[in-house]
Amino acid sequence: MLFWEDFHEGHVATCGRYVVGREEIIAFAREYDPDPIHLDDSAAEATRLGGLSASGWHVCAIFMRLLADGLLINADSMGSPGIEEVRFLRPVHPGAVLKLRRAVLETRDSKSRPEMGLVKFRFELIDATDAIVFELIGVIMFGRRNPGARLA
Amino acid sequence: MLFWEDFHEGHVATCGRYVVGREEIIAFAREYDPDPIHLDDSAAEATRLGGLSASGWHVCAIFMRLLADGLLINADSMGSPGIEEVRFLRPVHPGAVLKLRRAVLETRDSKSRPEMGLVKFRFELIDATDAIVFELIGVIMFGRRNPGARLA
Repeated sequence: MLFWEDFHEGHVATCGRYVVGREEIIAFAREYDPDPIHLDDSAAEATRLGGLSASGWHVCAIFMRLLADGLLINADSMGSPGIEEVRFLRPVHPGAVLKLRRAVLETRDSKSRPEMGLVKFRFELIDATDAIVFELIGVIMFGRRNPGARLA
Repeated sequence: MLFWEDFHEGHVATCGRYVVGREEIIAFAREYDPDPIHLDDSAAEATRLGGLSASGWHVCAIFMRLLADGLLINADSMGSPGIEEVRFLRPVHPGAVLKLRRAVLETRDSKSRPEMGLVKFRFELIDATDAIVFELIGVIMFGRRNPGARLA
C-alpha cells in the first residue's frame, strides 16, 4: 500500500494497456457527448480529426481507469480536489492502444489535515506509436503513513 | 445557429436539468472509476463525502451533456483544445438535480484559422439548493459567421 511518503518529485512510471473500442466510443458519446464526430463514421471523416474519435471526456474516463488500476488500487488515495489542466493533443480513434505515464511534479503536506498529503502529477496517455495523445496535470490526496502533528 | 460573433464577454446564462441516478453513478464507476465511494453505500457512508457520490469524471460527463443539449446543439462548435481548470466543490449524491450556468470570460479570434474563433467560459453546475458543486474553466472553438482575413 502506497502512502504520501512514497511519492518523490521527479519519479516517472508507466503502466497499463487500454484498447479503445468503437462500440465504447459510441456508447459513451450517446450518453454524454452526442456530437456526430463521436457517433458517426461518415460525419467524422469529413472533419479535421479524420474519422470517428472518442469524446475528450471519454478519454478522461479511460485515463481514470488506467490510473485506478495502475496506481490507486495500491494506494491510500483520498480523492482529488480538482484538475489544473487538460490537453487533448491528438484524436483517439477506435482500436487505439493507450498506456499511462505519470510523473510526480510536487509533493506537499496538508496544513489543515495532518492525516493526508498532496501529490501533483503530470499524467500522459501514450499510444502504440509512442505519441502523447492526452496530458493532464492534477493533484491527488493520499493518506500519510506517519500523520503530521495537528497544528493549533 | 450561434457563431463565434454571438458570444460576448460577461454574458451569463443558465440552462438544463439533469437528475443524477444511483444506477448511473454505479454503472459509470464500475466502468471507469471503481472506487468504493462511487460503488457502495456502506463504504461511502464511512467517508467524508457522507454517502455514495458520483465520480468526478462522471460529473464532467454530465456537465458535457448539459453543455451539448443547452448550447452546442445550437452552435457551430468546433471542439475544444483543452480545459484550464476543474474544481470538484461538493459531492454529487444520487437524486441530485443539476443545472448548468455559463459565463463568457473572453473571446478572441484565431490567427492560424480564420474560419474560427475561441471563447473562454466559466461553467458551473448548480444543485437544487443553488450550491455550486462543480466549476470548470475551458475554451471552446466556434465557427465564424464572417471568417477573418487569412494572414500571410
